[in-house]
Amino acid sequence: MNWFVTFHIVSLLVFLEGIAIAFSAVPGFLCNDPGKELFFLGLSGVFTMLCGLAGFLFTKRKDMTPPGLREGFAAVGLTWIICAVFGALPYIFCTGLFFPDAFFEAASGITTTGSSILAKGLRLRDGGTLKEGIESLSHGVLFWRSLSQWIGGGGIVVFSLAVIPFLGTGSQALYNAEVPGVKNNHDQFTPRVATTAKIMFGVYLTLTVILALLLWVKMDLFDAVCHALATMATGGFSTKNASIGHFESVYIEMVITVFMFLAGCNFILLFRLIRGMRFREYFSEEHKVFTGIVLGSTLLIALLLLISKFQSAADFHLFREIPGALRKSVFQVVSLISTTGFSTADYMEWPKSTHMLILFLMFSGACAGSTAGGFKVVRLLIMAKSAIAELKRCVYPRSVQLVKLDKTRIGNEAWRNAIGFSIIYFAVLFFTAFLLPFLCEMDPLTALSASITAISNVGPGLGELGPSENFAWVGTPAKLLLALEMIAGRLELYTILILFMPSFWKR
Amino acid sequence: MNWFVTFHIVSLLVFLEGIAIAFSAVPGFLCNDPGKELFFLGLSGVFTMLCGLAGFLFTKRKDMTPPGLREGFAAVGLTWIICAVFGALPYIFCTGLFFPDAFFEAASGITTTGSSILAKGLRLRDGGTLKEGIESLSHGVLFWRSLSQWIGGGGIVVFSLAVIPFLGTGSQALYNAEVPGVKNNHDQFTPRVATTAKIMFGVYLTLTVILALLLWVKMDLFDAVCHALATMATGGFSTKNASIGHFESVYIEMVITVFMFLAGCNFILLFRLIRGMRFREYFSEEHKVFTGIVLGSTLLIALLLLISKFQSAADFHLFREIPGALRKSVFQVVSLISTTGFSTADYMEWPKSTHMLILFLMFSGACAGSTAGGFKVVRLLIMAKSAIAELKRCVYPRSVQLVKLDKTRIGNEAWRNAIGFSIIYFAVLFFTAFLLPFLCEMDPLTALSASITAISNVGPGLGELGPSENFAWVGTPAKLLLALEMIAGRLELYTILILFMPSFWKR
Repeated sequence: MNWFVTFHIVSLLVFLEGIAIAFSAVPGFLCNDPGKELFFLGLSGVFTMLCGLAGFLFTKRKDMTPPGLREGFAAVGLTWIICAVFGALPYIFCTGLFFPDAFFEAASGITTTGSSILAKGLRLRDGGTLKEGIESLSHGVLFWRSLSQWIGGGGIVVFSLAVIPFLGTGSQALYNAEVPGVKNNHDQFTPRVATTAKIMFGVYLTLTVILALLLWVKMDLFDAVCHALATMATGGFSTKNASIGHFESVYIEMVITVFMFLAGCNFILLFRLIRGMRFREYFSEEHKVFTGIVLGSTLLIALLLLISKFQSAADFHLFREIPGALRKSVFQVVSLISTTGFSTADYMEWPKSTHMLILFLMFSGACAGSTAGGFKVVRLLIMAKSAIAELKRCVYPRSVQLVKLDKTRIGNEAWRNAIGFSIIYFAVLFFTAFLLPFLCEMDPLTALSASITAISNVGPGLGELGPSENFAWVGTPAKLLLALEMIAGRLELYTILILFMPSFWKR
Repeated sequence: MNWFVTFHIVSLLVFLEGIAIAFSAVPGFLCNDPGKELFFLGLSGVFTMLCGLAGFLFTKRKDMTPPGLREGFAAVGLTWIICAVFGALPYIFCTGLFFPDAFFEAASGITTTGSSILAKGLRLRDGGTLKEGIESLSHGVLFWRSLSQWIGGGGIVVFSLAVIPFLGTGSQALYNAEVPGVKNNHDQFTPRVATTAKIMFGVYLTLTVILALLLWVKMDLFDAVCHALATMATGGFSTKNASIGHFESVYIEMVITVFMFLAGCNFILLFRLIRGMRFREYFSEEHKVFTGIVLGSTLLIALLLLISKFQSAADFHLFREIPGALRKSVFQVVSLISTTGFSTADYMEWPKSTHMLILFLMFSGACAGSTAGGFKVVRLLIMAKSAIAELKRCVYPRSVQLVKLDKTRIGNEAWRNAIGFSIIYFAVLFFTAFLLPFLCEMDPLTALSASITAISNVGPGLGELGPSENFAWVGTPAKLLLALEMIAGRLELYTILILFMPSFWKR
């Protein structure tokens, strides 16, 4: 392991993070934040930049070899953990949070999870409490909170396309499985990936700007920008305690619903659609299933809401209730499956029959090649098709059962990789859910939903971690465990888990 | 599909079931059951025998071809469903249950699950209620209830060894993976399987007799026999409402704990141990992990029970509390992991941190080649090893990572089959948990635990289906769904799922 190269890369990214933190003071200044807040925010940024710079210079060597496989893994994994530590500084210095709280919030930010510990009444370092919850934060810190999500979301778009494929043949094979139309040709790979990353970032930036403009119609500019950043990253941090529910605006909810949906689509396909791809070709098999799940779940939940309203309300007018039920339902379904985690309603008050569906939406995630986290619809598809192939093999033992996606056969290696990923995903998910109750008294449903929401980077959970609750009460060990699970989930697990393997550190 | 052969086999097994039902009247007579009960029990048996005989004769053809792959699958799947229907007759005629309740109880019996709907106050067909719960049943019906479990448990021992391997190469390969030391050699396969089945049945019968004699010391003969039948089958039906807790006897609990553990071990290895295998060889990798899980879970739960007692009790004497905590803990751990489902304590009153562990024990199941249901420890091992191999492949992309079990490499086909099984297992488990809340209002934890307990053939669940509750309240559609899931779980899924595939029925 070449530590110099590894920390050279990490330092560079920490330096860039410092710039972003320091930059957050600008909107703070424009919104008339108190000078003390601006000073500490700027200081956090400058301190981070200096640490990054020092590390960068200290690890510079003349005969630097390019990073190999191990250095790549170590650099990526460590970057996210270290960036979460530095990203916590504004919360510590400006808002006055304790470190575990601040680290949880920062990790939740850069991983685009959106789980928050900023509860009303949270204990602060100076002995006081956070009186107004999220709304006690200064504009500068709120902006950094949203910006960190956007950076994390954009980072993953570029990262998943540009970095992961070089880290292992397995991942590269999966990448080929995930982005249809890109051939597994080593010679042509590098330039294509760079182009693809540029395209994806372009789509990301464009959609963010359009969304900010659309939201500006009904919000002030600051809130519009913050929500645009958090939406396109499928992050879910809001500037308000009541999340999107605060605005009570059909317009805002519908605009955000559409953009959460777009943020869950494959960005390459979106780009091709804009560039004149035929609409029929646009619908990859994954996209069709994704759209199907969204529509089906929306209708099902709306129906269940109507039934429960019918059973409880004295005067029930079906046609008057339908729009409200659909409005609540579509927003929450898209918010959960896109792993954004905004909320307009407390689904813990919905009929219990919706809760299992909500857990599934959190788990499933949206399309590969988007900013969404989660298991991803394409992997669900591969699993389902493998299961059917295995059943058919029982009836026709001598037949060859191919697993196909968009009419292309999934190669052995890509299949094996998808299976390996799934096993590890379930193992991490259940092992965390299993550990959580020992770290902090909670019932199994709360633990399971906390683990799913962390690994899928959604935000809210179920039970005692529903949309109207938050993560302030879970205690330091559970906060650190969940923060680590968020990072592992964001990096599609391998990168973080490999750091824990003894054989990885052997020479 | 040759329907005549299929129903020829099914009819034969229904006839044999009829004999078993009619035979249950003998212990009923010896225990002085009322004549009306004996008459209806005998009638149920004779009616079942006649139906079986009629079907057998009707489907007899001179030019009968031996059953092929499809006929085998259809015969096995249909046998279990139809036997559950006929097995419900004593509950309907003698006890007066409605059909869905009776079918659930019968399916829970022959699949060795042990979930019961015999609640105090259950509504009966004659408009009355079941006043004393399980204890209202006549001795004859109680005996049939236990005997059906033993038949189901023994059936699966023979079936899993003698029938499954012929149904598909995939299953046969898994069988080779599961029973170490049996070579995948087609020519030698048939006689070996027959011998193996005989050995396993011999072990099963011997242990049942020994257990009945040991229990007779502290129970009357009738209870001893019934509990011996239900224990060795890892079934879990008791003749008492409070299950084993009724007897309040350390002796009975310890004896049953040991035999539940034995019923969860690989019977072939047990046989070899008796025949003089060295003790060190006896411990296969699966057996080691199984024993490790049992010991670790017992200590962990005992510790959590002690801590919660310490926090709540005013006078706490550690050494006085330890035996009680261990006694409760070890019984429940072995009962759940062996998928028996007896209970001596209501674990819903235990600290919440134990509940996730309880869910895991229900899911995991014991060793392959035993009467236990569940996912099986050997598959957990294969999954874990595959995941580690996949992680290593990321670090060493050019290395070959073999998945080994007991120092033998798992072949590609066996691996693929284990993976296919796992995907299907999770799919069925979660899909049922997902459907249940729509069929009957329940929270996600209750639904998830109901699905796990049904597919693993355990018995009790969590939440509103804990050990002190029962399945009477879940409603007819949910009862039928769970009964089907029990049968699918018992037959290791393939057999039942294949019946639902359209391509299976095509010519």
